[in-house]
Amino acid sequence: MTQSGPAEANNDAIHVVGDGETRLDVDRTRRIGIPEAIYAQGKTTAQVLDIVTALLERNNDPIVVTRVNPDQAAALADLNPQLTASSTITWNHWPQRDVAPVAVLSGGTSDQPVVDECRATLLAMGVPVEVRTDVGVAGIHRLLDVLPQLGETSATVAVAGMEASMPTVLAGLVSGPIIGVPTSTGYGASLEGVTALLSMLSSCAPGIAVVGIDNGYGAACVAARAIGLR
Amino acid sequence: MTQSGPAEANNDAIHVVGDGETRLDVDRTRRIGIPEAIYAQGKTTAQVLDIVTALLERNNDPIVVTRVNPDQAAALADLNPQLTASSTITWNHWPQRDVAPVAVLSGGTSDQPVVDECRATLLAMGVPVEVRTDVGVAGIHRLLDVLPQLGETSATVAVAGMEASMPTVLAGLVSGPIIGVPTSTGYGASLEGVTALLSMLSSCAPGIAVVGIDNGYGAACVAARAIGLR
Amino acid sequence: MTQSGPAEANNDAIHVVGDGETRLDVDRTRRIGIPEAIYAQGKTTAQVLDIVTALLERNNDPIVVTRVNPDQAAALADLNPQLTASSTITWNHWPQRDVAPVAVLSGGTSDQPVVDECRATLLAMGVPVEVRTDVGVAGIHRLLDVLPQLGETSATVAVAGMEASMPTVLAGLVSGPIIGVPTSTGYGASLEGVTALLSMLSSCAPGIAVVGIDNGYGAACVAARAIGLR
Amino acid sequence: MTQSGPAEANNDAIHVVGDGETRLDVDRTRRIGIPEAIYAQGKTTAQVLDIVTALLERNNDPIVVTRVNPDQAAALADLNPQLTASSTITWNHWPQRDVAPVAVLSGGTSDQPVVDECRATLLAMGVPVEVRTDVGVAGIHRLLDVLPQLGETSATVAVAGMEASMPTVLAGLVSGPIIGVPTSTGYGASLEGVTALLSMLSSCAPGIAVVGIDNGYGAACVAARAIGLR
Amino acid sequence: MTQSGPAEANNDAIHVVGDGETRLDVDRTRRIGIPEAIYAQGKTTAQVLDIVTALLERNNDPIVVTRVNPDQAAALADLNPQLTASSTITWNHWPQRDVAPVAVLSGGTSDQPVVDECRATLLAMGVPVEVRTDVGVAGIHRLLDVLPQLGETSATVAVAGMEASMPTVLAGLVSGPIIGVPTSTGYGASLEGVTALLSMLSSCAPGIAVVGIDNGYGAACVAARAIGLR
Amino acid sequence: MTQSGPAEANNDAIHVVGDGETRLDVDRTRRIGIPEAIYAQGKTTAQVLDIVTALLERNNDPIVVTRVNPDQAAALADLNPQLTASSTITWNHWPQRDVAPVAVLSGGTSDQPVVDECRATLLAMGVPVEVRTDVGVAGIHRLLDVLPQLGETSATVAVAGMEASMPTVLAGLVSGPIIGVPTSTGYGASLEGVTALLSMLSSCAPGIAVVGIDNGYGAACVAARAIGLR
Amino acid sequence: MTQSGPAEANNDAIHVVGDGETRLDVDRTRRIGIPEAIYAQGKTTAQVLDIVTALLERNNDPIVVTRVNPDQAAALADLNPQLTASSTITWNHWPQRDVAPVAVLSGGTSDQPVVDECRATLLAMGVPVEVRTDVGVAGIHRLLDVLPQLGETSATVAVAGMEASMPTVLAGLVSGPIIGVPTSTGYGASLEGVTALLSMLSSCAPGIAVVGIDNGYGAACVAARAIGLR
Amino acid sequence: MTQSGPAEANNDAIHVVGDGETRLDVDRTRRIGIPEAIYAQGKTTAQVLDIVTALLERNNDPIVVTRVNPDQAAALADLNPQLTASSTITWNHWPQRDVAPVAVLSGGTSDQPVVDECRATLLAMGVPVEVRTDVGVAGIHRLLDVLPQLGETSATVAVAGMEASMPTVLAGLVSGPIIGVPTSTGYGASLEGVTALLSMLSSCAPGIAVVGIDNGYGAACVAARAIGLR
Repeated sequence: MTQSGPAEANNDAIHVVGDGETRLDVDRTRRIGIPEAIYAQGKTTAQVLDIVTALLERNNDPIVVTRVNPDQAAALADLNPQLTASSTITWNHWPQRDVAPVAVLSGGTSDQPVVDECRATLLAMGVPVEVRTDVGVAGIHRLLDVLPQLGETSATVAVAGMEASMPTVLAGLVSGPIIGVPTSTGYGASLEGVTALLSMLSSCAPGIAVVGIDNGYGAACVAARAIGLR
Repeated sequence: MTQSGPAEANNDAIHVVGDGETRLDVDRTRRIGIPEAIYAQGKTTAQVLDIVTALLERNNDPIVVTRVNPDQAAALADLNPQLTASSTITWNHWPQRDVAPVAVLSGGTSDQPVVDECRATLLAMGVPVEVRTDVGVAGIHRLLDVLPQLGETSATVAVAGMEASMPTVLAGLVSGPIIGVPTSTGYGASLEGVTALLSMLSSCAPGIAVVGIDNGYGAACVAARAIGLR
Repeated sequence: MTQSGPAEANNDAIHVVGDGETRLDVDRTRRIGIPEAIYAQGKTTAQVLDIVTALLERNNDPIVVTRVNPDQAAALADLNPQLTASSTITWNHWPQRDVAPVAVLSGGTSDQPVVDECRATLLAMGVPVEVRTDVGVAGIHRLLDVLPQLGETSATVAVAGMEASMPTVLAGLVSGPIIGVPTSTGYGASLEGVTALLSMLSSCAPGIAVVGIDNGYGAACVAARAIGLR
Repeated sequence: MTQSGPAEANNDAIHVVGDGETRLDVDRTRRIGIPEAIYAQGKTTAQVLDIVTALLERNNDPIVVTRVNPDQAAALADLNPQLTASSTITWNHWPQRDVAPVAVLSGGTSDQPVVDECRATLLAMGVPVEVRTDVGVAGIHRLLDVLPQLGETSATVAVAGMEASMPTVLAGLVSGPIIGVPTSTGYGASLEGVTALLSMLSSCAPGIAVVGIDNGYGAACVAARAIGLR
Repeated sequence: MTQSGPAEANNDAIHVVGDGETRLDVDRTRRIGIPEAIYAQGKTTAQVLDIVTALLERNNDPIVVTRVNPDQAAALADLNPQLTASSTITWNHWPQRDVAPVAVLSGGTSDQPVVDECRATLLAMGVPVEVRTDVGVAGIHRLLDVLPQLGETSATVAVAGMEASMPTVLAGLVSGPIIGVPTSTGYGASLEGVTALLSMLSSCAPGIAVVGIDNGYGAACVAARAIGLR
Repeated sequence: MTQSGPAEANNDAIHVVGDGETRLDVDRTRRIGIPEAIYAQGKTTAQVLDIVTALLERNNDPIVVTRVNPDQAAALADLNPQLTASSTITWNHWPQRDVAPVAVLSGGTSDQPVVDECRATLLAMGVPVEVRTDVGVAGIHRLLDVLPQLGETSATVAVAGMEASMPTVLAGLVSGPIIGVPTSTGYGASLEGVTALLSMLSSCAPGIAVVGIDNGYGAACVAARAIGLR
Repeated sequence: MTQSGPAEANNDAIHVVGDGETRLDVDRTRRIGIPEAIYAQGKTTAQVLDIVTALLERNNDPIVVTRVNPDQAAALADLNPQLTASSTITWNHWPQRDVAPVAVLSGGTSDQPVVDECRATLLAMGVPVEVRTDVGVAGIHRLLDVLPQLGETSATVAVAGMEASMPTVLAGLVSGPIIGVPTSTGYGASLEGVTALLSMLSSCAPGIAVVGIDNGYGAACVAARAIGLR
Repeated sequence: MTQSGPAEANNDAIHVVGDGETRLDVDRTRRIGIPEAIYAQGKTTAQVLDIVTALLERNNDPIVVTRVNPDQAAALADLNPQLTASSTITWNHWPQRDVAPVAVLSGGTSDQPVVDECRATLLAMGVPVEVRTDVGVAGIHRLLDVLPQLGETSATVAVAGMEASMPTVLAGLVSGPIIGVPTSTGYGASLEGVTALLSMLSSCAPGIAVVGIDNGYGAACVAARAIGLR
């Protein structure tokens, strides 16, 4: 932990966009090692364009925009993003760091947008990523088959919906940081991801770090904080 | 399914105990193959004693009393029960049936009262039982170690609290009826068993039959219905 | 229960489709007697087409695709399905097994898609099915009228929304496996099927096996596991 | 409906007890035909004694005290109540009215305190009551056996916990007012009566009037309002 | 209560429509005094047309179809309904009964569809209705102003969303049956009507009969049952 | 608003008690005008005694301890409190301010501990208080009778459980700040105060400021902030 | 508080619009100091037009219409509103009062419609407003930077979604009324604003007045009531 | 991540205690770097004693017993624990590792048992710990005062109940792993910790790793996994 209080904040720490509706925290990377991300949902295409344009002009920190809708995506394509994956778009990736990759595992094909959001965020921060999808424990050999392929990793992100058993089995088999991302995939009694969330938080396996439902970006940040320790 | 409608009911189908507060369904075994059980919680010791005494006098069908408190248990001990396990007490077991045993697996030591309720109910109906406790999937080798020991079974009851991943792994490995019993074991976000219940109902593995929280008796009945098919 | 652990898994147990996003568990039938099903919701039409095509090429196990939207349905029609009912489409039915039929009863007309999903899944596995709809207990003579028509059955699936009283009445009248499927039908305080789910799980009648809301496929799997015992 | 607004209220309509902490609505009977009741839970024994003493001195309207604990019950016994049943105590019953009785049916023995609260309240208002307990629909012949015994009734109160199917079956068979009282009896997924409450509110049978969980007093008031119409 | 068990049911009590998907309870009026209603939501336009056509051919009992969408409404208009109000359509009204009207009060303009459903159902059963809308207690003089206008009534239906205080104030002022219908109107913490529902069920005023959220039809049936007593 | 940032904080702003487990915010009064209160629940008697002793030694700001249990109350009595009311104990009252009193109204007798907590906190801050209990709107003349007695007030605190209609009626009749305190009083569907909380937040009357369940202390602080404006 | 009971109400206090479906409380301003607002959601464009037209003809009190959809907005534009901001439209602003402005702070750009609703309502009542958006505490220097800019204020409205920490930090730094408005902004576990609502109600900082989710109008009314004290 | 599948498991990986009710996962440390812990709640004193005795005999891995009640604590004291803190007891601490300490911060004094559980678990694994209690953000200078004292850390555990704002402010100020532990401290709308849990999961600050309510042990394991990366 490198701590830096508000006393050190100066005028450069805040960048006002447009007519005052957006107040970018451009000092965030210096304080916590993670650049600010733009959550596009609920913002107009114009607002998102203004913010990204302002950030592109300001410095070379990575820019991550999540949950873009097709209109926003079309507009942002004109700003030459470095990577577009599902609903996540990024610019200014940091150079790849010399760390073991983060493994991102998912329970099923439907979890892909969350996997993409997590992977894109990590790549933007220079962290290598290994993805393995569809390794839910209803056929546990799929998970057991995939684990040895991964070799040394910095952290494991487990993306799962429905009853989310996979992170529990995983946390009983591997060391190092394990980050659980519940997804809204499923039906019957999945409650839009609440069941997966509760399941991960109640796991009988020790040490699963949980983030919010469908929050692939948050999982990447937890992984980045763990790696940043080195 | 052998179906028998109310048209066939006669006066013998109802047995009134005490001053009319209890109306025993003594015809139930004939209709559905499962004898009535007495849920002791919320009843006075006198009420439970009256009911069991009345049933003992009436016929030789199994009697199962669940959720007895220590006072009730002490009083019922005078009626020479055949089996006492945790808070379940039974009389008049049917002779053991010639079927493969029902496997009852539990995630942890704290699930034992639910295991006992399920096992006692099955034994009272003449069904052999094989119990294996503490096989949660945080150490998945425990489950994989135990499964081959079980051999042929009629059904598998999976008793689990917390995030209840064990039934999902199990349902991906074994055939035959699988009955999930969520338990109120756990903390953090277990919500007194609601998380385990939702987890089992949302399982990505096909064909888990779920009963209510801590309902070991109900799981035995589901198993009995499956076995009764033969 | 025939149990088969991951130690026995070989390379054939996993079939990767496309660019690694789908990892089919083609060994599932051998292990648990139930072929893998494809849950179409949340998948693109292309993904669903790829998966079904891959499965059709691989072996003759039944293929069940549930929750298809009209676009997916139109595309899948080109692959010559054997049965299309509501939002469920199937291929490669196993030959009809020599078992008594499974009765599928529903509370009302609006439960039909769930009934169809259950029935199609059972037919694909070679299990004969008898359907009786609209037998809710607000007019209990409807249920009492229908029961004698059914004769011998292997299991009874009770599909019901709203307050879901029908499975309770049924479970007091018939023997053999009873599987409750709560549906999202209803309003007032139905909470999208949660009320029906809680009702079935709290039933005062013994031995109802419950699956998730609207999960006709899961109910068919529970029935198949029960029948598979024979 | 006889309506009487606050304009008609005079000083006699409020009776202050003790040092101002209780403001009895002694005018209530005149306005709505139902005397005020005292909910003892959360009040001290002294407070309850003061209130009942004040009411006894004031007029001859019925007094109903519900949810008394043993200490309060012992103290109130000195005031010569007319009826004591479970946790309900009454004084000053009105003479019995010339109406058909209200039928109070319950699903099981554990619902008795709620039955008693409802019955005592009705008796205090001069309404005859017929009670039939333990007529849950898991053995539907119990309900069908009891119904013809009841003859003409003014209203039917259906007291039920667990999944509360009995009021639905009942509402499909009998005419006249039907009042559902969900009880906190049950386990598994009964959620302290919430399941029974939701079930009654979602019933597929028309015209069930629902009151709060364990609210036997409220059910009696709904019945009294219906009867008062005459 | 006039009770009529299933033993009396004959073949005429069930009327099967189409290819068996709908099983009309045409005997219901005889048993409980309330004709069956058709809940159109979740049914196809063809299904609704078939059912209404079948009922029109069978007898002269009132027909009530609720929650029709515009397509269904257009199709049903060809069958010459007697009354169309919001999403409720009726045929074959019984002649007006010689009873005092039922008062239907609502908290605000947005509750109108629920008011209309309740009013149309009552009118179909021959019960006169007096409607007063927008009498919420935030301006309590509106309610106090309206009450004296109503004169003698058979019952009062209180339709209210948001925090639903109006039924409580009303139940403290008027005698006779009071039926609360919570509506999904509101925001902030209205939770789609759950707050209004809980509020009515917890009312400190005695004797409010509650039905499900937005269930104007159910409220009419509760009122009809009360009036039927006479 | 007088705003004072952390930059102005000095060593005197934190007062560490015991071995570092408690870090008193003794600067709070200067910043926000409200002295720190001690929430006794979950603290040992020794901890509470240490904290109050430390505060008594430090300065003359009011001290408010809420939710004391009998053991804590007995121990604190030795420290000569200025006021003890239900579970609230206070020292060092500020001199009475020259403002109109705050009216504290409650729905029923059982709400008294919450009334007392609010009243004691206000008195400690020098604010005069007028209490009127048991003015729930089931007998609306009680509220209408009490309002004119109150005269000019600075704010009105409305304490109510169950369905909490009283604040809504009140907010339609009086001007000035209205603060709603939901209480855990009630049963049926009161959900330990959640229903009252949701009701106040959804009120159709404009401008009710809501605090947490049973939070009489918080209501006093909201009132103090409003009065502090002057 | 100036209190004015229903006894003082006269015929002018109610203004019926259209065919009786709307009963405007045109006396509200006199009683509580806040003019009635029109909640447009769930009303037809014609209804909203009728109501506003009626109000414009009647007197010069401010008119506030909230939650207008584009159709309604287009129609209302013909009535020459004084201010249009997001989905709020106003007429007949009172002259600006001589009070310090109300500060309206928001956590992020997506909260803007709620900010606009609050600001427009205050401006209509003649209260000056200072808005600062995007001052969430993830970058706490943004809030600390903004506070000194605000100078003297009458009240502070804190609009925040997600975990809603900002009001807590704020309430520890500033005096005077603080009104928390939870918004439905956020994802992961935001539950459409429920998390922000619960967070504000549970705040460890004293004296936050909370209103319902997204209720910018309600926050303005709470502020107006506080200011009205002067 | 060092991964080790079940294929490597041998007989030594399972240690059965007593008569088969407990199946210790003694291989866990080798696989995931975290020794198994004993959750004492729900176990008898005899069971806990047996398990600890068996572990003490087996090897020198750390033993952590959490949630012991006074009876269990008294019995375990005879086994010479190395550390006893609140309800956590430990043996066989690993030698202190050469890493920067983990900072454990708490919002208030009442969170101490959770702080102790986290700290004891870390110390047992040889990780140095720095604790700072009572640094909630209602007085934000407390947190800002404490942060510089901490110097370099390996990770920060933020323990907070009520609205749990502290982790959000912290995550905007410091780098490295941040682990949020919601506690059941609080009232009003804290819902036994659910509000704090939802708040942390919805945080607007990036990268908070969340564990279950009151799960100090789990937080220590997440920290250990992060540190284990080195």
